[in-house]
Amino acid sequence: MTFKIGIVAASSRFSRETADRLTAWIAERYPAGEVAVVFHESSFLKHGHFAGDDAARARAFVDFANDPRLGAVWFARGGYGSCRIAEMVIPMLKPAAREKRYLGYSDAGSILAALYKAGFPHLAHGPMASDINRATGPETVQRAIDWLTKGSKAGFEPSLANDPRPAVAFNLSIIDALTGTAIEPDLTGHVLMLEDVSEPLYRIDRMMFHLTGQASIRRVAGIRLGRVSDIVENDPDFGLTPEQIVREWCARSGIPHLGAADIGHDGANKVVPFGSRVP
Amino acid sequence: MTFKIGIVAASSRFSRETADRLTAWIAERYPAGEVAVVFHESSFLKHGHFAGDDAARARAFVDFANDPRLGAVWFARGGYGSCRIAEMVIPMLKPAAREKRYLGYSDAGSILAALYKAGFPHLAHGPMASDINRATGPETVQRAIDWLTKGSKAGFEPSLANDPRPAVAFNLSIIDALTGTAIEPDLTGHVLMLEDVSEPLYRIDRMMFHLTGQASIRRVAGIRLGRVSDIVENDPDFGLTPEQIVREWCARSGIPHLGAADIGHDGANKVVPFGSRVP
Repeated sequence: MTFKIGIVAASSRFSRETADRLTAWIAERYPAGEVAVVFHESSFLKHGHFAGDDAARARAFVDFANDPRLGAVWFARGGYGSCRIAEMVIPMLKPAAREKRYLGYSDAGSILAALYKAGFPHLAHGPMASDINRATGPETVQRAIDWLTKGSKAGFEPSLANDPRPAVAFNLSIIDALTGTAIEPDLTGHVLMLEDVSEPLYRIDRMMFHLTGQASIRRVAGIRLGRVSDIVENDPDFGLTPEQIVREWCARSGIPHLGAADIGHDGANKVVPFGSRVP
Repeated sequence: MTFKIGIVAASSRFSRETADRLTAWIAERYPAGEVAVVFHESSFLKHGHFAGDDAARARAFVDFANDPRLGAVWFARGGYGSCRIAEMVIPMLKPAAREKRYLGYSDAGSILAALYKAGFPHLAHGPMASDINRATGPETVQRAIDWLTKGSKAGFEPSLANDPRPAVAFNLSIIDALTGTAIEPDLTGHVLMLEDVSEPLYRIDRMMFHLTGQASIRRVAGIRLGRVSDIVENDPDFGLTPEQIVREWCARSGIPHLGAADIGHDGANKVVPFGSRVP
């Protein structure tokens, strides 16, 4: 019995080469065919910045989400564009879509947010198909596949083991851009883990000002900061580290700062299942 | 009788050279001393990214706002940092602060927003002291001074002449970052003019998604787009112009798109007084 994972690009376009690399690795890793990956053909479309226009990306995601032959939907990669389709896909999803697991991070967070708001039970922030290209590719992808196929807890972000509260994880730029919109989920009582990449520190600061200024976000149980990598240099030097920035805005807004999170735009990015975890 | 304009840096630090250049130009332009500029000494402080730490910048702004000898407060320049002090300065302002005119754009928009929310009557989006450095410096600065000293309508953004509705103007990144926070003013029924600089188009798109997704912003009378300049190239090409992006999000959100606005990060940047205009 093969567990089929549907891979779809909801943001920027995916490359055939990466798809081929992942397919080859899966075939080698699962020689008896226990796990297979299926790429939605739309993932390779090109429409400006995107893997096809909004209608094509929305249709591709909905096709795979509703397909009862697929056990899970895995986001191909990030980039930009899933906020453009996140609201519109929700009413197109059928009961089969609720049974699946969905995994991704970075720009995919917009769709995960919309699904979480819609009550989907099996969502997680974690490695995507494109992570096969990292130096730690096999190990990183294995962590994702173990969760997608079995809901494995082995790759969970470690702080979850000692914290019974519901959790979510997002790219800071993504959660910041969906507050107040139709796809913002209710994060009351949640541990909110954040990470980001390729931003100058003044933007990290401005996003934290905005995020922690929201009445909705002030209801979270606390914030954990993952890795903020590839910081874009800015002149003059900002003068605060990402951790200092997050601590300051947590203090100003009264949101508990809970420490570090083992997530980020890197091969070590752990899995953070959304919501409450069954012990 | 000298009209004294107090210049203060609420964001990034200001340079002595620019201050000297502006002072020299004012002395030449107003040989009888009708207009003088006074720089708050804090404007030249350096604290990481900022013109002094938050406490110093807040104190400098409040000093000048409350000083009855000054007829107006002019923001020295943009950069980043006024969102860090905008909420805290409001309770420190005295009645004398309400009588003055305040002018700036870009990052200064955060303080203008907070002042507008607090009911200050004489606020405008328009050239700052740093604009003396532009090729059109004297003409640009004269436009600002004519409004600061006399409330001149000669430099008003031209669409205001034929539209009796209240208006505001903001840098898109700034208004986008203050929605939902304690400094977001009520813009119900306002014409909202937007401009931006040095952003890749995917960010303009994401900000428009977020901005037009706010229930508060959906109550504006409409949006006018000013200039979006120095667009940061991104690979692949985004495929939409700034105007197409703004039109699309206006259409999606039901906000009327009202056309162009003659504002931007350039010497032609016109004056947009906040709120209703007396005919």
